[in-house]
Amino acid sequence: MENDFDELRKRMIKSAKEKIKMNYESEEYALIQAINAYNEALKSQNLFYERLTEWYGLYFPEVSVSSPKALASLALILNSDRSIGKEAIESAIGDAGKAESIARKLEGSIGRLMGEEERNVIIEYAKLLLDMSDSIEKLDAYISAAVGRLLPNTAYITEDKIAAELLSKAGSMERLATFPASTVQLLGAEKALFKHIKFGSKPPKYGVIFKLPEVTNARKDLKGRIARLYATKIAMALKADYYTKNFIAEKLKNDISNGIKRISSSPIKEKPKREQRMGQNQHRKFDGKKRFHGRR
Amino acid sequence: MENDFDELRKRMIKSAKEKIKMNYESEEYALIQAINAYNEALKSQNLFYERLTEWYGLYFPEVSVSSPKALASLALILNSDRSIGKEAIESAIGDAGKAESIARKLEGSIGRLMGEEERNVIIEYAKLLLDMSDSIEKLDAYISAAVGRLLPNTAYITEDKIAAELLSKAGSMERLATFPASTVQLLGAEKALFKHIKFGSKPPKYGVIFKLPEVTNARKDLKGRIARLYATKIAMALKADYYTKNFIAEKLKNDISNGIKRISSSPIKEKPKREQRMGQNQHRKFDGKKRFHGRR
Repeated sequence: MENDFDELRKRMIKSAKEKIKMNYESEEYALIQAINAYNEALKSQNLFYERLTEWYGLYFPEVSVSSPKALASLALILNSDRSIGKEAIESAIGDAGKAESIARKLEGSIGRLMGEEERNVIIEYAKLLLDMSDSIEKLDAYISAAVGRLLPNTAYITEDKIAAELLSKAGSMERLATFPASTVQLLGAEKALFKHIKFGSKPPKYGVIFKLPEVTNARKDLKGRIARLYATKIAMALKADYYTKNFIAEKLKNDISNGIKRISSSPIKEKPKREQRMGQNQHRKFDGKKRFHGRR
Repeated sequence: MENDFDELRKRMIKSAKEKIKMNYESEEYALIQAINAYNEALKSQNLFYERLTEWYGLYFPEVSVSSPKALASLALILNSDRSIGKEAIESAIGDAGKAESIARKLEGSIGRLMGEEERNVIIEYAKLLLDMSDSIEKLDAYISAAVGRLLPNTAYITEDKIAAELLSKAGSMERLATFPASTVQLLGAEKALFKHIKFGSKPPKYGVIFKLPEVTNARKDLKGRIARLYATKIAMALKADYYTKNFIAEKLKNDISNGIKRISSSPIKEKPKREQRMGQNQHRKFDGKKRFHGRR
């Protein structure tokens, strides 16, 4: 009897473990981590780039380069006696014309001459920035590959990173696939949405999908309609990605470009005059008061 | 005549350049960059550590380590078939007992088995985290060395990083040395100070020097007085560091410990009752209105 009970207990624990295991079997959770890691690393990179620009500016204030990689490579070769040479600069930033002008500026530079200790620590920092941009590229490559496996339709009509971010906001493929177009449209705009519900501010028109160039660059009065069009098609693509696994993105993309043509040909809406607007949309305007007074 | 003018112009530009150059001759500007880089890198490291904890948790949710370095080292060796072995784990985290238990947990782990691609990208990320902690250590070492050269008195009575942060908040050694004790006490508390001036909220008691353990761990009603004591002595140390370059920190430290003893022996102040407090300090209480209505 005692043994039976033990046996049963073990079997139940094993089966529970199996169930949890199955829940994590899909690659989607790794993709969610990767896209979040990517976004965070991008932010850190910008911060480090700004810092290195300022720091390097002490030694060579005349220089200006346009990318973290170029700046870090340049910082790596700057030495205490400024005898770098055009060739070294060229191989660091990969631009002969620019290297020429940088070498000339360096000769007459008013920057501070660095001590050996300072040099070692700024080189260390520049190396870290270079490593970071390498890692970001590798994260990027992984995200594209994983999105190709998990969300081929969605990625085809949008972009790899937008597809991954939609997944990250939803939390799982299953949840994402069940969302209606309206939810897809506003994924990532939760803050603005709750502000609208709670304080009556303007409702948001788009969340993550705002990053689509077709939405960003659209005429202002059409942005919302184009975002909705995209959301409708993305919702269909998501269902295909999760349930049927068919590739329907070619057709969806056609639909989208037709839809955009149709929407774009609509006449420019006259902006209603202020008095009219106040009358019509008063319920939408922020009146300075909370709408709901429930507990928080 | 034309030539004379050209000659003069060149000479003037040269002299202006010399003057700018002299302004940056001191190491203090490199130190300011280094302490800022250090603080930013520390924040990024925490962010990356949290992310890796979550990510690694997909593959091995049972593990728990206490430092970014240990976690990253562990992530580096985890492979797709989980055949790591106790020895490898031990050499990664440097703790035999812990390695034993981790190896046991790994055998029965319910985590996801990672594909080759996922493995490469998480290893890349873990490496970046390791590089970052190395860089942070090197920045730390540079900061200590530079503070020892520039602010020996201040660092002796406080801490290397507190001295560097005071310098960073002030912007230059010269400015820092001219500050009175009251300004030193509140360096780094600018936000709270302006809130006090503008809205009448409680005045701040300390800025950067709050990080001193003697202040942090002081009795609540004495924190302000101990902070002021420190600020007085720090202001003296700063003047010695910038002007006389004498080492007076030994004496200052003595003064501080005597002062703390004296302050600590004062009886615990009874907190005034609410009605009394309202009467006495009404002008300090936030009355919900701005004090000044000047333009911002």
